[in-house]
Amino acid sequence: AMRRLSEIGEDALIERLIRLVPKCEAAEGPGDDCAVVDDGGERLALLKTDGMVEGVHFLKGAEAKAVGWKAVARVVSDFAAMGGVAERFLVTVALPGMMEISWIEGFYKGMGECMDRYGAKLAGGETCRVPEGSAAVISIAATGSVERGMVVLRSGGKCGDGLWVTGRLGGSLQGKHLTFSPRVEEARWLAEHFRATAMMDLSDGLAKDLPRLAKASGCGFRLEREAIPLTAGCTLEQALCDGEDFELLLAAPADADTGDWAERFPGLGLTRIGELVADGEGEILEGGWDHFS
Amino acid sequence: AMRRLSEIGEDALIERLIRLVPKCEAAEGPGDDCAVVDDGGERLALLKTDGMVEGVHFLKGAEAKAVGWKAVARVVSDFAAMGGVAERFLVTVALPGMMEISWIEGFYKGMGECMDRYGAKLAGGETCRVPEGSAAVISIAATGSVERGMVVLRSGGKCGDGLWVTGRLGGSLQGKHLTFSPRVEEARWLAEHFRATAMMDLSDGLAKDLPRLAKASGCGFRLEREAIPLTAGCTLEQALCDGEDFELLLAAPADADTGDWAERFPGLGLTRIGELVADGEGEILEGGWDHFS
Repeated sequence: AMRRLSEIGEDALIERLIRLVPKCEAAEGPGDDCAVVDDGGERLALLKTDGMVEGVHFLKGAEAKAVGWKAVARVVSDFAAMGGVAERFLVTVALPGMMEISWIEGFYKGMGECMDRYGAKLAGGETCRVPEGSAAVISIAATGSVERGMVVLRSGGKCGDGLWVTGRLGGSLQGKHLTFSPRVEEARWLAEHFRATAMMDLSDGLAKDLPRLAKASGCGFRLEREAIPLTAGCTLEQALCDGEDFELLLAAPADADTGDWAERFPGLGLTRIGELVADGEGEILEGGWDHFS
Repeated sequence: AMRRLSEIGEDALIERLIRLVPKCEAAEGPGDDCAVVDDGGERLALLKTDGMVEGVHFLKGAEAKAVGWKAVARVVSDFAAMGGVAERFLVTVALPGMMEISWIEGFYKGMGECMDRYGAKLAGGETCRVPEGSAAVISIAATGSVERGMVVLRSGGKCGDGLWVTGRLGGSLQGKHLTFSPRVEEARWLAEHFRATAMMDLSDGLAKDLPRLAKASGCGFRLEREAIPLTAGCTLEQALCDGEDFELLLAAPADADTGDWAERFPGLGLTRIGELVADGEGEILEGGWDHFS
């Protein structure tokens, strides 16, 4: 029988697909927040593509400007998770002909505000038509860079490292998912002063993303559930599974010092929520957001 | 009253949108085949994004491998039109959950074959879900480069330059649109030996694309209709308006010499079809493919 996408998870699908094409020689592992390419210069090149679908990542009635901000902010957040910055954006919008011009203009304004805020620019765009009744699809690709000594991969975590998150988790769909601020400066501080060994941004929920970080680092993990910083009014289940927190999850050596974090980033928590342990010795977490199943 | 996308053309829409975002300082003009960015190195960086929609750019029943080839070849062709090469691809596929896994695998195989053929590699991919009943959307972004002295923009044409096309035009939908070979080596020969002053690939039909090249160069044009090389069995109307020829359209000095073109590219025509004239003195061409109207 023919198998359909809905029968396998996103991670399994990607593993099957990337075997079928010539892959860049890249520093990062499969599933990292973005590709890291070494062209021999002082900075490593970062590359990322991302997709947003009407009815899945944003609702038809969502404010266009907020959706545009989010589209760019998601990618800025991916680059931040490597310790880097976004530089140039390429935007493909596939829209039904009946869409209002004012919507797509608002969307572009929101993208522009986020690019301005984070020092990035548009390098190219493409508009195409989808059949009436089809969902609008927005694809955002970007290039960026990171200093050679600052890059943080998912795979660098060591057994015994502490696990930390920024901010509070859960309940993002109440609004934060459209208005969040990518943790660019925070990530750079964590790479430089906190000696982060592995880092990612939390897009699919801690329950989905923490096992990914641990697996990429060849470790298991122990999670201290009572330590997880919850968004006001949210349950632990929401903090684990809602997704789209866009906070940073990182591993750092057991003796890493939070130093002047609180002065540098007032009001933003940096919370220890567990540790990496030897592979096979940790616990198993399930849940979180999967794009297909 | 609210205006809808279907009421304005693609070029007008893009002009409105690019005012709303911070733009890269780039060498090329708006509407060129790809962005050209000068980072100060020996080579200029090329950037491009492109979209393909099920039911618009390919049919549901189309062979997946051919669609994958086309998705990559379209972008390779855009880079070729600047005299450059594609290097790294970023692919976003937005698919309904009921899509067969074998289809997307075939699509990736086709992309892989085209990347192999033209020396490019995949740097990153993203899969996301569209609601059932929505068209699949594929977005392909890429980075590439061109030697500083080789780059050919749309805007470099001069009054009195001859206008030329490679190959034959029209009837692409009979199959060539899925299997075409981007004119990479041909474009580089034309930039180097034929002193091409302006160049683009023919994606929306000569009737749409020739006025774009002339306008970007600040010129009018005269077209010698009887000289246009027609695909066997095609009418002049088809050659002007079908689109997706993916041949090169270029301007070159009146005394440019076709030299050893015929030996280098056996079986592929290089045909003079008119000339650039002073702005306002040429003719007006209408028709060709518009993505919205």
